[in-house]
Amino acid sequence: MVSISKQERIDETGFSDIKIIQNPKEFCYGIDAVLLSAFVAGETGTKPIKCKRMMDMGTGTGIIPFIVSHKTDFEYILGVEKQKTSWERAQKGLDLNRIDNIEFINKDIIDIREGELGMFDAITCNPPYKKRGSGIRNDSEAKYIARHETSAELGDFIRVAGDNLVFKGHFFMVHRPSRLSDIIYSMKNNEIEPLDLQFVAPRFGEKPNILLIHGVKGGKNELKVLNELYVYEGDSYSEEILNIYERLD
Amino acid sequence: MVSISKQERIDETGFSDIKIIQNPKEFCYGIDAVLLSAFVAGETGTKPIKCKRMMDMGTGTGIIPFIVSHKTDFEYILGVEKQKTSWERAQKGLDLNRIDNIEFINKDIIDIREGELGMFDAITCNPPYKKRGSGIRNDSEAKYIARHETSAELGDFIRVAGDNLVFKGHFFMVHRPSRLSDIIYSMKNNEIEPLDLQFVAPRFGEKPNILLIHGVKGGKNELKVLNELYVYEGDSYSEEILNIYERLD
Repeated sequence: MVSISKQERIDETGFSDIKIIQNPKEFCYGIDAVLLSAFVAGETGTKPIKCKRMMDMGTGTGIIPFIVSHKTDFEYILGVEKQKTSWERAQKGLDLNRIDNIEFINKDIIDIREGELGMFDAITCNPPYKKRGSGIRNDSEAKYIARHETSAELGDFIRVAGDNLVFKGHFFMVHRPSRLSDIIYSMKNNEIEPLDLQFVAPRFGEKPNILLIHGVKGGKNELKVLNELYVYEGDSYSEEILNIYERLD
Repeated sequence: MVSISKQERIDETGFSDIKIIQNPKEFCYGIDAVLLSAFVAGETGTKPIKCKRMMDMGTGTGIIPFIVSHKTDFEYILGVEKQKTSWERAQKGLDLNRIDNIEFINKDIIDIREGELGMFDAITCNPPYKKRGSGIRNDSEAKYIARHETSAELGDFIRVAGDNLVFKGHFFMVHRPSRLSDIIYSMKNNEIEPLDLQFVAPRFGEKPNILLIHGVKGGKNELKVLNELYVYEGDSYSEEILNIYERLD
């Protein structure tokens, strides 16, 4: 039996019977985490990968490990989260969902030394999008940390990924298109060669507001730009998004 | 009166009464040059720029200077071309079109020293797409040089652009999406910050096969991904392409 506090809520993810424990006042996962998981699983145009050990950096309450574990046959997934309350919720989610190939640790990714957690075949990351100090700090501390670069910045996430991937290991990230050049620059500086790039726009004819990128450590220098995805068609989710959410027959 | 050889042909560009002299056995311009010119002129979503002096690197028979001169009020445009026969055709095109704010010089861009031709507010480039030694060398020498990196490679074009742009000067390039990460890496290494990125696909639902990128020397680190363009709608040019070709009323 899993006990939750008054602030916490148990949410259905819609993926099989996987539930997730969140505090709506702190941070709830969004479509970005779902898109990244589908991208990792090869559902949006990337070639599906083989993976024994995956790490999710800045895992929050564990949404990416839970969805990826559901969508793939990866043997083991480690989620790393620096915020203690989020990590505790991820742990409780594990008890709730009775999944035995996921672990969560409470650690700031910036402190992960090369190979200290073992090397990984795949590393995923849905990092805070906002730069340190940007925006007005009226959110709760937990929400601020989830959304803003506090200790680790974009370049740190990518450096730690580079340090902890096996040769030919896979890196997957979701971010804002405005950071694309920094992401590519940092990936190349860490010998992660961009392989697949996919933009997601709210609707056809609108500018993309999400990017998905996949790189391979020591990989070939040949980027593929995949078909753009659209989240909505009119006021409903598009067919491709419904597919990702597994809401189509 | 302009005289042309048997191998040469005078082609209408469709832009006002601008004509261009080409040898179909060597190289004829394609839609990429037209798209780049429209991108430079702010017709596809970039903010139109002010420009006194523009340079087009690897100008061939001069198509980009001719179209940009038609679409903008840039004061002066210099086209640089290393192949003597192409340069001669560009010169003859100048006589034919009686345009007085364009010059062409016969020079390999790799030999341009910093500031030797003056500094530029904008530099454009539709470079050879293929890597040196790739493909089968069954084309004519001139066609091979136009399509393959021979002396100057991608990184050289970008380095020479960085060396010859004024601070806050504009760099515009058309290339294949597969080279995006090399382009961004090289731009950042030469202090040209990517500002606008636009993909062009043959049709909606197909993968993009052309990219347009605009960067600013010493610019802000904030990339905008513009709406994707589609060349065709069914078997005809799309409305946006017809607009660029100025074939709509």
